[in-house]
Amino acid sequence: MTGKSIFDIGLEKGPANHRPLTPLSLIERAATTFPDHIAVIHGKRRTSWAQTYRRCRQLASALTQRGIQVGDTVAVMAPNITEFYEATFGVPMCGAVLNALNTRLDAENLAFILDHGEAKLLISDRIFSSVIKDALALIDRKIILIDIDDDLADFGELIGETDYEAFIAGGDPDFDWRMPEDEWEAIALNYTSGTTGNPKGVVYSHRGAFLSALSHMVVWSMPQHPIYLWTLPMFHANGWCFAWGLAAVAGTSVCLRKVEAKPIFASFRENKVTHFCAAPIVLGMLANASSEDRTRWEQKIKCFTAASPPPAPTLEAMAKMDIEVTHVYGLTEVYGPATVCAWQESWGKLSLAEQSNMKVRQGVRYPVMEELMVADPKTMKPVPCDGETIGEVMMRGNLVMKGYLKNPQATEEAFAGGWFRTGDLGVIHPDSYIELKDRSKDIIISGGENISTIEVEGVLYRHPAVLDAAVVARPDEKWGETPCAFIELREGANPTEDEIIAFCRKNLAHFKAPKSVVFTSLPKTSTGKIQKFKLREEAKAL
Amino acid sequence: MTGKSIFDIGLEKGPANHRPLTPLSLIERAATTFPDHIAVIHGKRRTSWAQTYRRCRQLASALTQRGIQVGDTVAVMAPNITEFYEATFGVPMCGAVLNALNTRLDAENLAFILDHGEAKLLISDRIFSSVIKDALALIDRKIILIDIDDDLADFGELIGETDYEAFIAGGDPDFDWRMPEDEWEAIALNYTSGTTGNPKGVVYSHRGAFLSALSHMVVWSMPQHPIYLWTLPMFHANGWCFAWGLAAVAGTSVCLRKVEAKPIFASFRENKVTHFCAAPIVLGMLANASSEDRTRWEQKIKCFTAASPPPAPTLEAMAKMDIEVTHVYGLTEVYGPATVCAWQESWGKLSLAEQSNMKVRQGVRYPVMEELMVADPKTMKPVPCDGETIGEVMMRGNLVMKGYLKNPQATEEAFAGGWFRTGDLGVIHPDSYIELKDRSKDIIISGGENISTIEVEGVLYRHPAVLDAAVVARPDEKWGETPCAFIELREGANPTEDEIIAFCRKNLAHFKAPKSVVFTSLPKTSTGKIQKFKLREEAKAL
Repeated sequence: MTGKSIFDIGLEKGPANHRPLTPLSLIERAATTFPDHIAVIHGKRRTSWAQTYRRCRQLASALTQRGIQVGDTVAVMAPNITEFYEATFGVPMCGAVLNALNTRLDAENLAFILDHGEAKLLISDRIFSSVIKDALALIDRKIILIDIDDDLADFGELIGETDYEAFIAGGDPDFDWRMPEDEWEAIALNYTSGTTGNPKGVVYSHRGAFLSALSHMVVWSMPQHPIYLWTLPMFHANGWCFAWGLAAVAGTSVCLRKVEAKPIFASFRENKVTHFCAAPIVLGMLANASSEDRTRWEQKIKCFTAASPPPAPTLEAMAKMDIEVTHVYGLTEVYGPATVCAWQESWGKLSLAEQSNMKVRQGVRYPVMEELMVADPKTMKPVPCDGETIGEVMMRGNLVMKGYLKNPQATEEAFAGGWFRTGDLGVIHPDSYIELKDRSKDIIISGGENISTIEVEGVLYRHPAVLDAAVVARPDEKWGETPCAFIELREGANPTEDEIIAFCRKNLAHFKAPKSVVFTSLPKTSTGKIQKFKLREEAKAL
Repeated sequence: MTGKSIFDIGLEKGPANHRPLTPLSLIERAATTFPDHIAVIHGKRRTSWAQTYRRCRQLASALTQRGIQVGDTVAVMAPNITEFYEATFGVPMCGAVLNALNTRLDAENLAFILDHGEAKLLISDRIFSSVIKDALALIDRKIILIDIDDDLADFGELIGETDYEAFIAGGDPDFDWRMPEDEWEAIALNYTSGTTGNPKGVVYSHRGAFLSALSHMVVWSMPQHPIYLWTLPMFHANGWCFAWGLAAVAGTSVCLRKVEAKPIFASFRENKVTHFCAAPIVLGMLANASSEDRTRWEQKIKCFTAASPPPAPTLEAMAKMDIEVTHVYGLTEVYGPATVCAWQESWGKLSLAEQSNMKVRQGVRYPVMEELMVADPKTMKPVPCDGETIGEVMMRGNLVMKGYLKNPQATEEAFAGGWFRTGDLGVIHPDSYIELKDRSKDIIISGGENISTIEVEGVLYRHPAVLDAAVVARPDEKWGETPCAFIELREGANPTEDEIIAFCRKNLAHFKAPKSVVFTSLPKTSTGKIQKFKLREEAKAL
């Protein structure tokens, strides 16, 4: 404050009125208030909140006994199973930092992460024994390895010094676990799966994790005791912080080893799922599932989707199944989703197609992401709210990461000008909703005009023959670059290149229509993102 | 952290990733995202979120122009009307601290508060012109006075230097309002209405106000766009922080000048109210309303009740009206409610009477009130969870006030031992729910045995003749103290003292039954609390 006021005296922070914000305080409350309520369902196994809390404390205690100290890194390599959920709380409960590994990575990438993140201990599901063995062979240092020996794992070896159950059995279920001393302390380390270059280690604070977890509950109007299906990987930004948030409302986590239509539909019905998060590709899988994989259910189901805008046909298919889809947007750097395409009552009057046009947008900021803007990355001047002028999406607030681990240069670049620069290009509409147009590096410049590859892909998805599509720049002598479309076709479909181009010209400004079309299967990263850099190489070689 | 870890380096707070938590960030979001959604309904007047935000900025600007500086106090004396709602944001938006005055206080008390809180400016509804004139006459200092000249105010004079509309008309609707520099800065000052002694000024921080506001949304599973009826005074712990919280979900505030059954029922129907907060006495008023005051409505209505446990007949009457009542508990010192009698699914199988026994308890901590215990106030040792051993209810966490303004001794006493001592005595049940038994100073010690006056009152309320009841200690040569009951009877009821005593002996341990009964009308404070100290004097004189 400027000057001294009466409010500056004798009103200091103390143990009674100021505690570190942390999602860890939520599990104690869930376990004490709803001890018998089911926290985790995995196959036939049910774990109550009281049991989960005990097991998390056992894990924290066992880690401490095994030498893990405050500020050490503990890695987890697992599908969405009970043990992973427990680690989300149990690891930080001993003061360690949770490093959830992307299970789709290869040995070399995993070795890089384990090495760079300085993991002291790794808890790994046995289905990953082969890749983990290879990864550990690439590291000089010894990392303590604990196997998860899950009954539902259908292959893999035990290669660790013990298994998870035996390990935590040695831990104290009444362990006096550690609250952070400061809410800015690290709780998690999540490596981004960049499409090129070495992964960067995004560090989360207890404060940010708590606020992200709580704000999902508000943004999604989550009721007490939701039943949440884990289609989204728990390793992905700690399940977008839902792993922690579910404790605030004593929800039930329904595990899922494999993201396939049949077990998802079966779980909807059997477990009375009320909420799930999934990329549009998963929703597409549900929309296109065979009738024998489908089930019927009675409850309302709500879905958060992110990673790319949900295509209109997918939204319509979900609406028919009575699944209410909300589009959210974020990055690992902002704890998962940090904007939401908040529903406007006036949209209720629009046609389904018009509603889709609204819903594919990335929307408005979360209540705890204090500022969001689309701005010129050089001048930092916000673009006009005209839905046309492209700028970089930037955010600042309490949902932005602490920074990149051991990478001051990348941190400085990401925070240049006092804002987190997402690297995503977009526009802001007159109604204040943002819409992404491209990644900075993906945009096509043809004859001096910007072409949003997302826009072209949006048109391609409307063609009935197209299952999946990606548009990249192809070098061109005359135009500099032209759009080149890579298309994965639906079974039985057989369009010509000309048909596709004509369809685009009918639905787009002509200069935006692809000049070349390739029918192929699309290369994807471990998190399902299309690897455009590979397609760009292919386009260059055409 | 102990020792240095890799997470201690290069991951500092900065403008991109750390902002002060404040409820003020919520109104900008509501106004930008839902500009046309109605923020406030007052009679026939509708104010949208965009308009409300403009008017709040105008107010902040006008206050600044009139000389209000950061850390100054601005007081408001008003019923639950549009201008009050605006002041809740507008006053802190210029860096000032909002001092909402209890409208039921007399001139002397108001003068004490305005003097002690050092208010520089007072915004006052004209219905209070008489008491405000008297209060200001008692103060040496000049306080700038702004009248609220509301069309719906049916009496009172204009005595200020201008009226609210003219005042804010001079303010800039695009005013570059002030975010707090630090989230620990004061946002509000609320004087407790102690039953004896001078009021104490409870100071709230931006951080605490934000967390309280957000946690209500989570605890109550508030949807987007709730329609909230203001039965609870906005001056009461800033409407339990709901004034701010409603901005997080772009809710609609429905104003109410007078808490009477008829306009409440009318509003339920006309405004499609979904939520309200009210003391059990208000619920009792609804339960006992005449049939001509009642209406029917189609929506679900949820109610938070606090101040005293809701009597079983009231809960049953509310259930019949399809109003879902949840009992919460708190004090001005903890930003309003900080515990909630969270519903357990297993209670669904209980009889209504058994459910009432569960629901009258004060419950479990809010997710952001990190710790709650019932403990021996001397040893600080928690009492066993047996539902019988009485201790003092204590809390610590982010929902505890900054302290009492200019009262270090009271602050120190309240925070002695690193906990906020509520002064309420209670037990903790085996299911971890707390239940209040008495205020420390109200408990009766008879023959060495503690008697909870709340317990005796609970039995009295079950007697069909009893409208309102209060039990206090009466000095007794043999027993030290004995319970003395003061009873306000229902119209037409005419029981004898002996009947009442016999009824209590049938339903209580005999030593707990009142030894004397007085039929009278009960003295109440301005917030509707029964003034037991007056009854104790009366009991002494019997």
